[in-house]
Amino acid sequence: MVDKRRVRRAISLASYPLIREFLGELAGTFVLVLCIIGTKAQTVLTNGKLAEFMAGRFGDGFGVMAGVWVAGGVSGAHLNPAMSFGLACVGRLEWRKLPVYWAAQYIGAFAAASCVFAVYLEAIYYQTGGQFVMTEDDPGFAAIFAPYPSAYLSTAGAIVDSIVGSALLLLCACAIVDRLNCKVPLSVFALYMGFLIMGLGISFSMNCGVPVNPARDLSPRLFTYLVGWGPQVFSYDNWMWFWIPLVIPHFGATLGAFIYIIFIEAHWPE
Amino acid sequence: MVDKRRVRRAISLASYPLIREFLGELAGTFVLVLCIIGTKAQTVLTNGKLAEFMAGRFGDGFGVMAGVWVAGGVSGAHLNPAMSFGLACVGRLEWRKLPVYWAAQYIGAFAAASCVFAVYLEAIYYQTGGQFVMTEDDPGFAAIFAPYPSAYLSTAGAIVDSIVGSALLLLCACAIVDRLNCKVPLSVFALYMGFLIMGLGISFSMNCGVPVNPARDLSPRLFTYLVGWGPQVFSYDNWMWFWIPLVIPHFGATLGAFIYIIFIEAHWPE
Amino acid sequence: MVDKRRVRRAISLASYPLIREFLGELAGTFVLVLCIIGTKAQTVLTNGKLAEFMAGRFGDGFGVMAGVWVAGGVSGAHLNPAMSFGLACVGRLEWRKLPVYWAAQYIGAFAAASCVFAVYLEAIYYQTGGQFVMTEDDPGFAAIFAPYPSAYLSTAGAIVDSIVGSALLLLCACAIVDRLNCKVPLSVFALYMGFLIMGLGISFSMNCGVPVNPARDLSPRLFTYLVGWGPQVFSYDNWMWFWIPLVIPHFGATLGAFIYIIFIEAHWPE
Amino acid sequence: MVDKRRVRRAISLASYPLIREFLGELAGTFVLVLCIIGTKAQTVLTNGKLAEFMAGRFGDGFGVMAGVWVAGGVSGAHLNPAMSFGLACVGRLEWRKLPVYWAAQYIGAFAAASCVFAVYLEAIYYQTGGQFVMTEDDPGFAAIFAPYPSAYLSTAGAIVDSIVGSALLLLCACAIVDRLNCKVPLSVFALYMGFLIMGLGISFSMNCGVPVNPARDLSPRLFTYLVGWGPQVFSYDNWMWFWIPLVIPHFGATLGAFIYIIFIEAHWPE
Repeated sequence: MVDKRRVRRAISLASYPLIREFLGELAGTFVLVLCIIGTKAQTVLTNGKLAEFMAGRFGDGFGVMAGVWVAGGVSGAHLNPAMSFGLACVGRLEWRKLPVYWAAQYIGAFAAASCVFAVYLEAIYYQTGGQFVMTEDDPGFAAIFAPYPSAYLSTAGAIVDSIVGSALLLLCACAIVDRLNCKVPLSVFALYMGFLIMGLGISFSMNCGVPVNPARDLSPRLFTYLVGWGPQVFSYDNWMWFWIPLVIPHFGATLGAFIYIIFIEAHWPE
Repeated sequence: MVDKRRVRRAISLASYPLIREFLGELAGTFVLVLCIIGTKAQTVLTNGKLAEFMAGRFGDGFGVMAGVWVAGGVSGAHLNPAMSFGLACVGRLEWRKLPVYWAAQYIGAFAAASCVFAVYLEAIYYQTGGQFVMTEDDPGFAAIFAPYPSAYLSTAGAIVDSIVGSALLLLCACAIVDRLNCKVPLSVFALYMGFLIMGLGISFSMNCGVPVNPARDLSPRLFTYLVGWGPQVFSYDNWMWFWIPLVIPHFGATLGAFIYIIFIEAHWPE
Repeated sequence: MVDKRRVRRAISLASYPLIREFLGELAGTFVLVLCIIGTKAQTVLTNGKLAEFMAGRFGDGFGVMAGVWVAGGVSGAHLNPAMSFGLACVGRLEWRKLPVYWAAQYIGAFAAASCVFAVYLEAIYYQTGGQFVMTEDDPGFAAIFAPYPSAYLSTAGAIVDSIVGSALLLLCACAIVDRLNCKVPLSVFALYMGFLIMGLGISFSMNCGVPVNPARDLSPRLFTYLVGWGPQVFSYDNWMWFWIPLVIPHFGATLGAFIYIIFIEAHWPE
Repeated sequence: MVDKRRVRRAISLASYPLIREFLGELAGTFVLVLCIIGTKAQTVLTNGKLAEFMAGRFGDGFGVMAGVWVAGGVSGAHLNPAMSFGLACVGRLEWRKLPVYWAAQYIGAFAAASCVFAVYLEAIYYQTGGQFVMTEDDPGFAAIFAPYPSAYLSTAGAIVDSIVGSALLLLCACAIVDRLNCKVPLSVFALYMGFLIMGLGISFSMNCGVPVNPARDLSPRLFTYLVGWGPQVFSYDNWMWFWIPLVIPHFGATLGAFIYIIFIEAHWPE
């Protein structure tokens, strides 16, 4: 057999931290989105029979947990372009790293969407007869991959929802990782971040499915566009929906990070 | 860009511990009540479809968890005027701090109620047609914000329920934070306090929704009064309900703290 | 105000370890049974609406968690006469302490049953009209307090069920507390013991409700006898049921403890 | 009484590490499969009433948790022949140990199936009338012991499902145990591995029940063959199903372990 240590040393990228972090975010976001969309697929395709509401929330939470296991020690496991942006704004991520993190996150999420599609291909064909269609007011099975808003929700309502959700996400995430607050060890981040996403989904998913992660939203949406659901995945609700989960979380995340600094972090004794 | 460290030092309140603790309790109670009422809103507005009973309990538990993440290292994360009162009675909080903690808790809870109202405004209008009404025996959508008792429950029954619930809360909370008992580290408090509220909700929420936290109760109730549900939010059940979750938990909490001391804490070897 | 330190020193029983442990087991078992029966009451009285199956399991698990928080650092939180017996058999509890532990556990469980009865008194009257009756094949609301077997279950089947359940309980409990195995710290015992009871309830509650804890069974059953359900709580199924959860778990627990020693514990390197 | 220390020393196998590990894997896999099949039995026999979907996932997760408690400090608690194989491929398990681990795992799973059968014997007879039959397209109560695929699933689809599931399992398991990543202590492995199996079941159980563990699959299937369901447990779906959970996970597990090395582990700084 080959000498494993030598092979590992040959492929090691330890001297290129940014490439390491790219790979970490890529693998972490892949696992995150794989579990979240897998859960959603199982919920939609069995009409909630093999994943009731709470199971769906656990699935989301587990996705985050798994993503943090994989990338936590490498890149800090942002797994979310808006979180990377918010952390850059408050000085916790170098700006030059931001594009690399973003690229990893969008690519990882796209790969995950493809993988879930491969696993549930036959189930989707069995139920749709191969017709990938969505109507004006019902996204149909496209909802497996990307969320769509409730009928009653206005654009302003969706923006408020997205800001509150992503601000809460960053407020809590900053609290968890602040070593001067509850002194949470790195090994527990995964558990707490998982509960955080679970909690967001329980409290604020009714309007439009917690639009806080642009990568989890855009990449699978693009995937549905490419495999045949067509331009309606973007034009849904007169082009007034798809950009909200893509743009707004960046503002909400930055807001949440600043709230944490203003209320808590700035006041620690030296 | 501005020098972040200098900005932080400028706004730092590290030399005014009481203001720090005020901000901590404020932010912590805000997050707590935001998640609890958000969960309740989603449960009521979807009629349990997007949050079955157990999901509601997880939502409550997550709210506490998030509140402890935010305020745990600052103020100890009481997040509950009755808990602050009980801890003051047993000497774990200086009496002079009590009014500050109380103010922070009631203000934080009021802000959270407003925030949930903003997020679910359209959903509430969509379902009520803008009519905020409650009848003699049905609080309607006002139940999103503050709990109301079951029809069969007498005033005496509600008092017993509130005392048992808040005593159990403090008994367990004292056990968790007692470093001589299970040696629970600060980083795990959030998890355990979350499970504690979840457990209370599973065992003792049937009568009147676990009335153990006056801030979580009064502030959102006041909010419903102000936005249009009117005086019935207080006069419900002939004025015999609203004061129970406001007053009784203080006695229950003190009782629970003393039970813990008498049965466990007083007997540790030096 | 009185000097709290002096008061505490006056009532301290630190020099009487056995009394301390008695009080710890008493308070711990009280909390355990309070939560377990409270959960069961809420499940039965709302017909599962305010506590579906899984919520019931979480309620049980939380009861154990709370019991361990309270008694874990004092007495080891057995909270179960069969567990104390099994641990005595393998040398982890002095035999002279066993009667004291047993007394504390049965008394604590009885106090808890009374307390739940007080909280849910009005709900029980509201639904029963004050008639506490049980028939040959339906224990009715007496099932809130103590479990009864499924109709299809023979005495032999109940004995097998009880032995497997209590052996599994001790096998896992011994693994958790064995510092040479997974090195679980004391602060995590509560979490793991909670999951353990939850898991037992998910896998093995169908036949007769996991009869593994004689105190949780006998004391509440005696309570139902005293408050009016009458001798049928014992004579149910021709007197062939009530003694099984009382006697058999002692054998199962001892078996489980020995299995752990034979398969794992005896073989640790010095 | 006998001197316990002397007895323990007499039966100690501390000097034969491989026998110790055999016993550990045996006991761990026994507990794992006992809980997983016990949960499945309760789900199937009560038609989901005493274990809804999410409870089933918690039951599986708890099984893993218990298995890790028992075997974690002895053998690393693989509890899964495919995981042992994958870890051997990446140099984390000596090849000479592999057959011993495999034997322990298959034997433990078989013992667990027998034990669940003993506990639920009367319930199964009560519902089947003693007729153990399965038809072409409905495995009936044989599904308690071993999983069968959905009707729409082709052989290729089952293979993809099995590879994705087992690769995800190993990818996450390698991340959890990698001390250079999130620094997860041994005592938390049980919790995280439990959540991992729970998450897999929520996201990827719809097609054919997460076929990632050959021991959990083959041994109970063999048991159903022996107790009377007959050769159809293997010939189901024209002999095109039973070998998939037996063979494919070995490839998937190895793939997952290599993905972790390529994306994360190879790049740690020295």
